[in-house]
Amino acid sequence: MAHIIDHSYYKDSWGTPEMRAVFDDERRFQRWLDFWAELALVQAEDGVIPKEAAEEIKRKAQVENLDAAFIREELGKAGHTLVPVLRAFERACDNGAGEWIHYGATTQDVQDTALAAEMKDAWSILFKNLKALEETCLEQAERYKNLVIVGRTHNQHALPMTLGMKLATFAAEIRRTLERFKDVPDRAFFIMLHGGVGTMAGLGPDAKAIAQRMADRLGLVYPPVSWASARDGVAEFLSVLGICAGTMGRLANEIFQLSRTELGEVHEPMPATMVGSSTMPHKRNAVRSEFSGTMVKIVMNNVTLGLQSMVVSHERDASVWRLDWHTVPESCIMLDRVINHMRTVVGGLVVNEDKIAENLDLTSGAIMSEAVMFKLGEKVGKQSAHHVLHEVIMEAAQSGKPFRQAIGESDALKDKLDPAELEALLDYRDYLGTAVAQVEDTIALSRSLSQNDPF
Amino acid sequence: MAHIIDHSYYKDSWGTPEMRAVFDDERRFQRWLDFWAELALVQAEDGVIPKEAAEEIKRKAQVENLDAAFIREELGKAGHTLVPVLRAFERACDNGAGEWIHYGATTQDVQDTALAAEMKDAWSILFKNLKALEETCLEQAERYKNLVIVGRTHNQHALPMTLGMKLATFAAEIRRTLERFKDVPDRAFFIMLHGGVGTMAGLGPDAKAIAQRMADRLGLVYPPVSWASARDGVAEFLSVLGICAGTMGRLANEIFQLSRTELGEVHEPMPATMVGSSTMPHKRNAVRSEFSGTMVKIVMNNVTLGLQSMVVSHERDASVWRLDWHTVPESCIMLDRVINHMRTVVGGLVVNEDKIAENLDLTSGAIMSEAVMFKLGEKVGKQSAHHVLHEVIMEAAQSGKPFRQAIGESDALKDKLDPAELEALLDYRDYLGTAVAQVEDTIALSRSLSQNDPF
Amino acid sequence: MAHIIDHSYYKDSWGTPEMRAVFDDERRFQRWLDFWAELALVQAEDGVIPKEAAEEIKRKAQVENLDAAFIREELGKAGHTLVPVLRAFERACDNGAGEWIHYGATTQDVQDTALAAEMKDAWSILFKNLKALEETCLEQAERYKNLVIVGRTHNQHALPMTLGMKLATFAAEIRRTLERFKDVPDRAFFIMLHGGVGTMAGLGPDAKAIAQRMADRLGLVYPPVSWASARDGVAEFLSVLGICAGTMGRLANEIFQLSRTELGEVHEPMPATMVGSSTMPHKRNAVRSEFSGTMVKIVMNNVTLGLQSMVVSHERDASVWRLDWHTVPESCIMLDRVINHMRTVVGGLVVNEDKIAENLDLTSGAIMSEAVMFKLGEKVGKQSAHHVLHEVIMEAAQSGKPFRQAIGESDALKDKLDPAELEALLDYRDYLGTAVAQVEDTIALSRSLSQNDPF
Amino acid sequence: MAHIIDHSYYKDSWGTPEMRAVFDDERRFQRWLDFWAELALVQAEDGVIPKEAAEEIKRKAQVENLDAAFIREELGKAGHTLVPVLRAFERACDNGAGEWIHYGATTQDVQDTALAAEMKDAWSILFKNLKALEETCLEQAERYKNLVIVGRTHNQHALPMTLGMKLATFAAEIRRTLERFKDVPDRAFFIMLHGGVGTMAGLGPDAKAIAQRMADRLGLVYPPVSWASARDGVAEFLSVLGICAGTMGRLANEIFQLSRTELGEVHEPMPATMVGSSTMPHKRNAVRSEFSGTMVKIVMNNVTLGLQSMVVSHERDASVWRLDWHTVPESCIMLDRVINHMRTVVGGLVVNEDKIAENLDLTSGAIMSEAVMFKLGEKVGKQSAHHVLHEVIMEAAQSGKPFRQAIGESDALKDKLDPAELEALLDYRDYLGTAVAQVEDTIALSRSLSQNDPF
Repeated sequence: MAHIIDHSYYKDSWGTPEMRAVFDDERRFQRWLDFWAELALVQAEDGVIPKEAAEEIKRKAQVENLDAAFIREELGKAGHTLVPVLRAFERACDNGAGEWIHYGATTQDVQDTALAAEMKDAWSILFKNLKALEETCLEQAERYKNLVIVGRTHNQHALPMTLGMKLATFAAEIRRTLERFKDVPDRAFFIMLHGGVGTMAGLGPDAKAIAQRMADRLGLVYPPVSWASARDGVAEFLSVLGICAGTMGRLANEIFQLSRTELGEVHEPMPATMVGSSTMPHKRNAVRSEFSGTMVKIVMNNVTLGLQSMVVSHERDASVWRLDWHTVPESCIMLDRVINHMRTVVGGLVVNEDKIAENLDLTSGAIMSEAVMFKLGEKVGKQSAHHVLHEVIMEAAQSGKPFRQAIGESDALKDKLDPAELEALLDYRDYLGTAVAQVEDTIALSRSLSQNDPF
Repeated sequence: MAHIIDHSYYKDSWGTPEMRAVFDDERRFQRWLDFWAELALVQAEDGVIPKEAAEEIKRKAQVENLDAAFIREELGKAGHTLVPVLRAFERACDNGAGEWIHYGATTQDVQDTALAAEMKDAWSILFKNLKALEETCLEQAERYKNLVIVGRTHNQHALPMTLGMKLATFAAEIRRTLERFKDVPDRAFFIMLHGGVGTMAGLGPDAKAIAQRMADRLGLVYPPVSWASARDGVAEFLSVLGICAGTMGRLANEIFQLSRTELGEVHEPMPATMVGSSTMPHKRNAVRSEFSGTMVKIVMNNVTLGLQSMVVSHERDASVWRLDWHTVPESCIMLDRVINHMRTVVGGLVVNEDKIAENLDLTSGAIMSEAVMFKLGEKVGKQSAHHVLHEVIMEAAQSGKPFRQAIGESDALKDKLDPAELEALLDYRDYLGTAVAQVEDTIALSRSLSQNDPF
Repeated sequence: MAHIIDHSYYKDSWGTPEMRAVFDDERRFQRWLDFWAELALVQAEDGVIPKEAAEEIKRKAQVENLDAAFIREELGKAGHTLVPVLRAFERACDNGAGEWIHYGATTQDVQDTALAAEMKDAWSILFKNLKALEETCLEQAERYKNLVIVGRTHNQHALPMTLGMKLATFAAEIRRTLERFKDVPDRAFFIMLHGGVGTMAGLGPDAKAIAQRMADRLGLVYPPVSWASARDGVAEFLSVLGICAGTMGRLANEIFQLSRTELGEVHEPMPATMVGSSTMPHKRNAVRSEFSGTMVKIVMNNVTLGLQSMVVSHERDASVWRLDWHTVPESCIMLDRVINHMRTVVGGLVVNEDKIAENLDLTSGAIMSEAVMFKLGEKVGKQSAHHVLHEVIMEAAQSGKPFRQAIGESDALKDKLDPAELEALLDYRDYLGTAVAQVEDTIALSRSLSQNDPF
Repeated sequence: MAHIIDHSYYKDSWGTPEMRAVFDDERRFQRWLDFWAELALVQAEDGVIPKEAAEEIKRKAQVENLDAAFIREELGKAGHTLVPVLRAFERACDNGAGEWIHYGATTQDVQDTALAAEMKDAWSILFKNLKALEETCLEQAERYKNLVIVGRTHNQHALPMTLGMKLATFAAEIRRTLERFKDVPDRAFFIMLHGGVGTMAGLGPDAKAIAQRMADRLGLVYPPVSWASARDGVAEFLSVLGICAGTMGRLANEIFQLSRTELGEVHEPMPATMVGSSTMPHKRNAVRSEFSGTMVKIVMNNVTLGLQSMVVSHERDASVWRLDWHTVPESCIMLDRVINHMRTVVGGLVVNEDKIAENLDLTSGAIMSEAVMFKLGEKVGKQSAHHVLHEVIMEAAQSGKPFRQAIGESDALKDKLDPAELEALLDYRDYLGTAVAQVEDTIALSRSLSQNDPF
């Protein structure tokens, strides 16, 4: 195999078997057969084709019945993706039933309906896994909602917060993306039964009813006008995957950074058999997070292809729709791998509370300077307080004096704040604002919105 | 000016004055002043800061009161975007009120709330203009719903359809994108009042109530947890702009292609004063469509930046959020220009019915081969019919014989279809399927969904 | 298979067997074995490891000797890409030779050297095929250098040119890209033998000499400093592929547009067995060009991933380097398919000279308005001439009068240009400027530069 | 102003005045005037236009002579970018000289030649600044070539290296990119004087000579065939900027990470007046590096637009070439800002040697496990040694025992390595491999290649 998601040995690092199965090439042909079988049954009900033919078509609509060698030979001659499969299926049907396959339909009806069905299956898997990850994040957020940890901005220690609140920001993003997922089906998972240029001319007078019945049978939506040229739905689906990848990318990076040797606040769960390096036996790498960081870049980058595939010329344009055959499977497969990695990582997160506490005090209380400033500001005005504290800190930085000591010894401060007051101000647990409430509010909002979840 | 959207002469070709005003740099400072004024008023109500100070802050919160030279000088020294403006505003306030500005807030609270407000204003303008374009497309679709035109796939003539149906596919895409727009505000237009790392610690015990009141006053949403690190909303907004750009790109390209010298089916409305070329006086270029084709590429490409800006490190990370200052204005400004161009073009579309009819007959009826095939298929089976017709056409193509003649003279066909039957089969108007109904269904769905439009 | 380039039936539409073989997953393992074998031999020469061990390693370094089941089992346990293969290879070696494999090397030494070798192999194939395409374009340019065809700007007829000159613009782009290819190896095809963080500490005192000898044996370059973190070479390689894809995209689009039903100037060669559509027997699609249009978008979009993979954290960072395993094969395989398609299409191009002549006259001479303007300009000034002609043309467009007639009857012109003069001015063959010379100059430049081609 | 690179207050954070001046909109018009003046002079020499007219054109070719109000009015009417400027220039010329301006040229000749000249000017500035940065990196690499620092892979401590070697990897990347810069001009900085469709028909019989003379006067290359449709040169230029941005992104990120509160190994130089935060007085952010991280993403993302602009339809296509007006200035301006930031940061880098030493010992010698393994491997075989050490480390990690102690107490090791041997093995300075030599080799290669630098 040439592509990494199909790699004989590594494919499970770049995808999940469940999602690969959705896009397996044999499965695609089966979807085409399903389309033809359902169409035949509907048309037979409608009297458009003979009942016996439809039954034979339905009976033989199994990919095992196709002659693979014949398909390969025809492919070489015809240079057309669908016709060889159609011909092979005709040959598999007895009693002339083959003539009634694909009746009134065009290539793209079959291929795009199959694409919509693939997207819907992938969407279901992703939704369920993402929802499970949301639950995991919420549970861990609840568990660690009071665990004080340093908050960092611009890679610098800034203010105390809690690990639970940090996790809640991910849960909130994920919930919003679950809502985005919920918006997709009505705008994207469409049946295509519109014929060559979308007029449904080949389907006869009952075209609309046939299409509606097909849509119902296949669990898809029948749109008011052909989407052969209007592929915004695919683009939206890929965009939502891209947004989901963005969240996963942030989560993976957070783990990857917090597990640095110097930080060591959290680690991925790591089975004893895992090897960090072929030469450096001491390595404990955040393997899943790092790997996820690779894959999310690809999923995000594929969004551009999704958008480009909207710029169709006229009623159909293979130079853009065919992008979907590349992009949709690649993005779904990698994203599913990433979501599952993140469930494992967040669910089994190794939290090093000692190291978290140690890091919290690394600046010797300087991360409480805002709290000191506000209290001081009540006495001398906020901007003046900012100015005074900035000077104390800069002097401390140059002299190497710890912040607690520097602030305690500062002439500018000692008559404003007495030692006990200062000591209280430097207690990290007393400057958490609404951190805990934010965890609870996030859980509550998720519980409320999930009432309408499809699964 | 260095950027084309600010170009002294060309900026109106790359944007609209209305949208530029949303993102004007003075206007941004005004939004910051508005934030500070509203925060002061809310905090005064709450007893956090003195009422008089709040009133003075509100009174002076006009960008004209800021000392531009002072800001420039401070910028040079401080290397910080907001602090110089804050200091200038403090100086503008009398009686020590300046000390109470920005009380308990952090830089990003001001900047991100302003960003949310900018996005909301831009969203309103885009929604209204896009909705107007939808209406224009629907009107033109209704007007031309029966006008038969050739449908093209793979750039080749395929089957007849109607111009109205073609236009309906754009209206349907636009309506779906209007629905996407409607989903955005609740997930993206958030107030930020969460302080340094998002805990709201600086706001005191009433933090949540203050934030909710601020959100109400500013017309924004108060989210359950800080979005300083969770920027999926901005990414979704940019993605929806990208999807909208994709639709506009298809529409612009369709006009651009149909107005080719050889096709000549439609033209952009062109005022007499317009010049096509500096040296070729005969040119009638589809200027607006071509220009739109440029800008949509930029708006689509910016989606990737929107997604990249989600991968925040820890509680805040300027290396990604600052992308928004580049991407959001650029995309909104260009997209608004494109939407307005498309309204002008579709609304004033010059439809050359003679040329459309002439083109329709260019293959001498070969585009009706599917209709002939289906009729023939009823007699000899569909696949056999396809085979027979393929041969007739290939022979005709080689001999140069027109299709009507070739088919009439074909030995394989003459005993299957009599001349009158054949003549009827070749009537383009009788093979339109549900084209007209699709226009009507599109209008009906739009009318139904627009009941819930915000404007 | 899940990815389209590995699709059981369609993979040859998305790649070539020759290029797939370069990136086959078994082949990758073979490259690793080759690395280990060569390293062992070099180290044995140097006295670092026993000669017998090196010989045994070399002897067993065939992928058939690896126990696939064992590798799979270890992969599941170790979660590491290379270690299981290394262990399997150790097991394949007798007499304890296994202990001497990978001596002083680290995982990335093996993997990145293999990547460099893959890129070099791919580069050779692409260079040869692209050069063959250049030759094809030059031959066709020479053949059609005098065939007058309408030149189009903004999709409108503009001025006459020749088909050969049109083809020469492609040949010139391709030649420049061949030169870009020639610049790549010295900056990208590097050996990696630098160990964990690039210091070569594991290789002992003769590290530099060992690395140089390895580089020579493998046909790679030994860079002055480790490239584990400095991956600009991969990015350049992918950028050059992207630029090549851009050229192919333009060429494919040109064929796709010129073969429109209305234009019909050229067609792809099409074997009789090829099928255009499952329902529309008359279709003659530009299949290869359209397909190429899909693939080039992917190759161009992958450049962004190549650039992102440069932003390495510290001495190695799998979240970016692992992108190469996705991007490099995907881009090489698709691009090779496209280049080969284009050779077939350009080499067998069906040129419809009648249709070209017919189109040339479609504006009834209006495309000669520049020529008329210049002549008229000699008498009344160029800008005045432009103004006069613009008016004549606009009036003609409104009245529907052919340009030849309109210009002949124009009051503003008749006393300036006599009929014979006008007739001569409207001869397309007399307004070709340097079109033919440009073809010849392009050929000459290519001949000169190709003196230094590697193949 | 609406775009951030033109922002009244912040533009110097997103660009440099020197580079903005290259792309200033007035300057662009001046370049057009220069083109017209030089063309007139060349044509006058050639006898094509009157000498007096050419002199008048040259005399008036200053942007101050254009009537801005007139241009604005004409722009509104003509909807054409160049014609209004041309008309304004005609009006500025006396004695009918205006009629001879733009003689035989077309719009794109003027605009694209100006673009090439802009690119060349930008290229010179970027080359010089990048070369200065290379020099700064080399100097610092030399200075710190022996300073031992921990090397990190996957964000984990791996092995010792030197700070100088780390800096050398950047210098090497930059040198390779300087070589890429040197390859660009011959393939990208072309004169355009090819008229409407590229045939040069308007220039008369001496077209080639005129074009060559113009190219010489303007310092541009005269290509063998028109590049109106063949825009690979612009794409290459933007790709090289993208690659340069990738290197800058890695460098900026390295500083950003190493200056984390926990790492603290290096800091950006920071003037005393600089403010880290509006509310957190203790912050010492890596402002320039973080800002650079934003801008490089934009420059890298713009490469895609550069590639898309290659897919031109026919002889000219504004829907793609016009992208250049957006992308080229944006990328050049931001990249120049970034390069200059990096010079300041690397040149004034604050190196905290104490912290570097402290971090180096953070794993208590575990980063020397490879060295121990190799020595042990000499006695028990490398793979066995890896296995033993992995177990020792895992046990130490669980018990919290420092590595030095754990390894000293290990039963599996104590009879293999005596304490003195072990102590020597754990000396970081003795396991640097060729780190220092790599610095020296990098300097030597740069010195050799820079012999051929243009500046």
